[in-house]
Amino acid sequence: MKGLMMDSHLTVSSILQYAEKYHQDGEIVSRNVEGGIHRYSYKDAAVRSRRLANGLKRLGVTPQDRVATLAWNTHRHYELYYAVSGSGAILHTINPRLFPDQLAYILNHAEDEVLFIDLTFIPLLEQVAPQLKSLKKIVVLTDREHMPKSPLPEAIPFLCYEALVEAESEVFEWPEIDETSAASLCYTSGTTGNPKGVLYSHRSTVLHAWASISKDALDIGNNNTLLPVVPMFHVNAWGVPYSATMVGAKLILPGAGMDGASLSELIAEEQVDLLLGVPTIWLGLLQYCDQKNIKLEPVKNVVIGGAAAPLSMIKAFQEKHDAFVMHAWGMTELSPIGTVNSLNRHMAKLPIEERYKLQTKQGRPVFGIEMKIAGADNQALPHDGESFGHLLVKGPWVASSYYKVEKSPLVDGWFDTGDVATIDPQGYMNIVDRAKDVIKSGGEWISSIDLENAAIGHPALAECAVIGVPHPKWDERPLLLAVVRESMEISKEEIISFLADKVAKWWLPDDVIFVDELPHTATGKILKMKLRESYQSVLSEAT
Amino acid sequence: MKGLMMDSHLTVSSILQYAEKYHQDGEIVSRNVEGGIHRYSYKDAAVRSRRLANGLKRLGVTPQDRVATLAWNTHRHYELYYAVSGSGAILHTINPRLFPDQLAYILNHAEDEVLFIDLTFIPLLEQVAPQLKSLKKIVVLTDREHMPKSPLPEAIPFLCYEALVEAESEVFEWPEIDETSAASLCYTSGTTGNPKGVLYSHRSTVLHAWASISKDALDIGNNNTLLPVVPMFHVNAWGVPYSATMVGAKLILPGAGMDGASLSELIAEEQVDLLLGVPTIWLGLLQYCDQKNIKLEPVKNVVIGGAAAPLSMIKAFQEKHDAFVMHAWGMTELSPIGTVNSLNRHMAKLPIEERYKLQTKQGRPVFGIEMKIAGADNQALPHDGESFGHLLVKGPWVASSYYKVEKSPLVDGWFDTGDVATIDPQGYMNIVDRAKDVIKSGGEWISSIDLENAAIGHPALAECAVIGVPHPKWDERPLLLAVVRESMEISKEEIISFLADKVAKWWLPDDVIFVDELPHTATGKILKMKLRESYQSVLSEAT
Repeated sequence: MKGLMMDSHLTVSSILQYAEKYHQDGEIVSRNVEGGIHRYSYKDAAVRSRRLANGLKRLGVTPQDRVATLAWNTHRHYELYYAVSGSGAILHTINPRLFPDQLAYILNHAEDEVLFIDLTFIPLLEQVAPQLKSLKKIVVLTDREHMPKSPLPEAIPFLCYEALVEAESEVFEWPEIDETSAASLCYTSGTTGNPKGVLYSHRSTVLHAWASISKDALDIGNNNTLLPVVPMFHVNAWGVPYSATMVGAKLILPGAGMDGASLSELIAEEQVDLLLGVPTIWLGLLQYCDQKNIKLEPVKNVVIGGAAAPLSMIKAFQEKHDAFVMHAWGMTELSPIGTVNSLNRHMAKLPIEERYKLQTKQGRPVFGIEMKIAGADNQALPHDGESFGHLLVKGPWVASSYYKVEKSPLVDGWFDTGDVATIDPQGYMNIVDRAKDVIKSGGEWISSIDLENAAIGHPALAECAVIGVPHPKWDERPLLLAVVRESMEISKEEIISFLADKVAKWWLPDDVIFVDELPHTATGKILKMKLRESYQSVLSEAT
Repeated sequence: MKGLMMDSHLTVSSILQYAEKYHQDGEIVSRNVEGGIHRYSYKDAAVRSRRLANGLKRLGVTPQDRVATLAWNTHRHYELYYAVSGSGAILHTINPRLFPDQLAYILNHAEDEVLFIDLTFIPLLEQVAPQLKSLKKIVVLTDREHMPKSPLPEAIPFLCYEALVEAESEVFEWPEIDETSAASLCYTSGTTGNPKGVLYSHRSTVLHAWASISKDALDIGNNNTLLPVVPMFHVNAWGVPYSATMVGAKLILPGAGMDGASLSELIAEEQVDLLLGVPTIWLGLLQYCDQKNIKLEPVKNVVIGGAAAPLSMIKAFQEKHDAFVMHAWGMTELSPIGTVNSLNRHMAKLPIEERYKLQTKQGRPVFGIEMKIAGADNQALPHDGESFGHLLVKGPWVASSYYKVEKSPLVDGWFDTGDVATIDPQGYMNIVDRAKDVIKSGGEWISSIDLENAAIGHPALAECAVIGVPHPKWDERPLLLAVVRESMEISKEEIISFLADKVAKWWLPDDVIFVDELPHTATGKILKMKLRESYQSVLSEAT
């Protein structure tokens, strides 16, 4: 027997419509790519999104067409989030930090016909243009005064975003959309093989937003001021453009300014209380604050995801800035949020050092996500905090397959995350490593992440990476690549002795190599595959 | 094109399964009907719910069967919430405060075969037994020592709940259930005609819980300790058994103890920070606290719904107990939550007296609920805070029809709430009156609720009701029925003069009648229909 409830569909446009009615004065503040700050309300954003939706129609975009964006976190990108999905088309956000070949592959694979692009990325477009097969129209996210010359063949219209929006009526009826329809598309920043497209639905987007605002998840309400430094060009900035809108929080979009100076300025001027981003960004911000002796006064919570947050970073935020770090974990295929490590009843009672230790774990699944770990034979492993295995997930915002890929990635209905993790009796999940980054030494596993987190605690190190490199006797042994902080010095021996009481003896890196910088993916992850290629023979040559 | 996300269904059992894994130590504290306090964890509750699910099977309950409960807020009732819906049957909670004829009507209409009943309600069962047609088995919610003798014919098994649960295995696999399936059934406490059944789905129940925990709704997280005084026998205690479980909040179930002494004791001993209930209950609690000079120290928020919260109550909670009142509005057909008046950015900035005034409004819709007001011609009225009309709602947890009723209650896809309301430009909804309670005086409308709220501000009045009674000249005129506080005195003239500067002159009641008590529905609403019957001729006789 069916329940007798309304068959109301969960749609992306309903979020903006709600904000227009009930959060009309809520502010969206955006650092312009052209310079300066843009400031308007959710109501203004809704009006402009409707104009834009009419503009999309004029451009010939029809429901289910993919519309590409190559753009920073700005109010114009925000308008595209709602205008594209809201009108029934599919918002295809593209990560500009991908290699040009991957960019071209993605644009062709998604068959994007219209691309909205920030000024910054025009040179990139020029570079990949010869490879593009489907692209028919370019819209530059700027006003008339800042319009550049087109670097493309004349046959491809090269339009001005502000001119497009201004020309249209603000009268637009958001169509009714089945909640299982596709709303947006994001390709994994995969370090191996071609990127794969994850096709989010309206339903998954709304449920993910609902789950993420809750007190035990990202804890987002109307009173908050959010600064998502995590980019809107990848996994929808962790869903913040939806979740912030749902509650009418003040939303600060940092544009292209991801450096410490730009961020700390925005935080102080807009009184940001919730930061969201990857560890690399926070390293830069914390270093800047140290140098300038700045305290991030208004910040209360910092959500860190994308990579492991080192203990030293958790402590720095708490002790220098009075800000609580909520570790989170997710991935493109999870929309992206899977777990959050929030300050619950249990954690609140812990002595501070124990609390810090618990905070380094990735947290517990938000309601909606099921999680288990399994061994090589796909048998479930115990949640004892010790056993580690492949992390498998399930839930209404988890991908069931990839765009235009026949083969299902699921195993008995579960999605294999490619991470290796432990789960403790209270359900705290801890990523041990990426399955492909785990170092297999003499039949045992060493977590590259644990080693990195231990090493980064040394004050002289700005960043570091541990990779497994081939070793004639042990199969693989850990190699530490270290970036030393400006104007500081440290020797290999000092690093090894610093690690000696923090990890098992047989985990100690066989060598330390100092480098000027480490290669990163667009989302701030260290490109270990590249490092493994570069350093594959250092230990075999050394022996 | 469909999104490529998992087709995971939202089910009631998933909430308890989640809590068993991630909130295993979270406490449920319950005042036993037999006396004393019962205390256990969400994990224990999950284990017992599985035993009970096996017990239901043994009783012959099959998916989609209606299983009736006549019970207080206790841990046993909580177990039924999950065991019944989780195993695919339909939890039919019955309001014991209905008239016996209505009770019998409901039990027969739902074709309940099994009834779970608290000791308190056995005499009620005895009273209605002769009228019951479908009932085959009774389970008394107690242990062996407290089992009473059956008042029913021997042919009807009369079983002990604890014996049933103890006899079963805790191994039970919650079945996969389509989210649109019926999960629970609640009949409206309608004051006119036969009660009508609202059939909630698994989907509506989960979405309602998600919406209600958010910071801008009831603001429920893992750190909270909740005391739902609103009964589990009506509209699922505003969904608290689901929402509290979702976040693992400490849940305090007050059993049959709804009086000021019992409640204030629980609040102090269990450190309750969030109260939920109807105004009548809080009147009792506040009076008790005044008498005993008690401050409700741990309480931070009080959610008030079911009827208008008078300004004096909002002030009393804030000024005497440092507790913020969140007015909420809903109804059986809305699962029940429609609006919440939470402390948002806007309200936080208001001077206290203005804030109090705003707090008397029922608030703004939670995300998911659409709302409009319409005139008699069904045309939408402006949201100007002045125009008032019939309140219409839409959303995934709003009823689309009634159980076994052919005729749709919807108007162009909207549900008519039967309330008359205003909506201001910021979206704050204010219930003016029930459409049937509005007093039609000389072609104009007078809000009985506004008059009641003004009158109850007088310290000598414990409770009051305003009804429209037939009047030879004006059609209807307001009559005020007042209950005076113990050991206080007040005259008609004093009341009228107290009201004189608070409402328009033509709104002033034509008469005041002092009564010892007012009749209430099960959910604390004043039974105005009954009052109108009793007092229908007082003004026509007087003239």
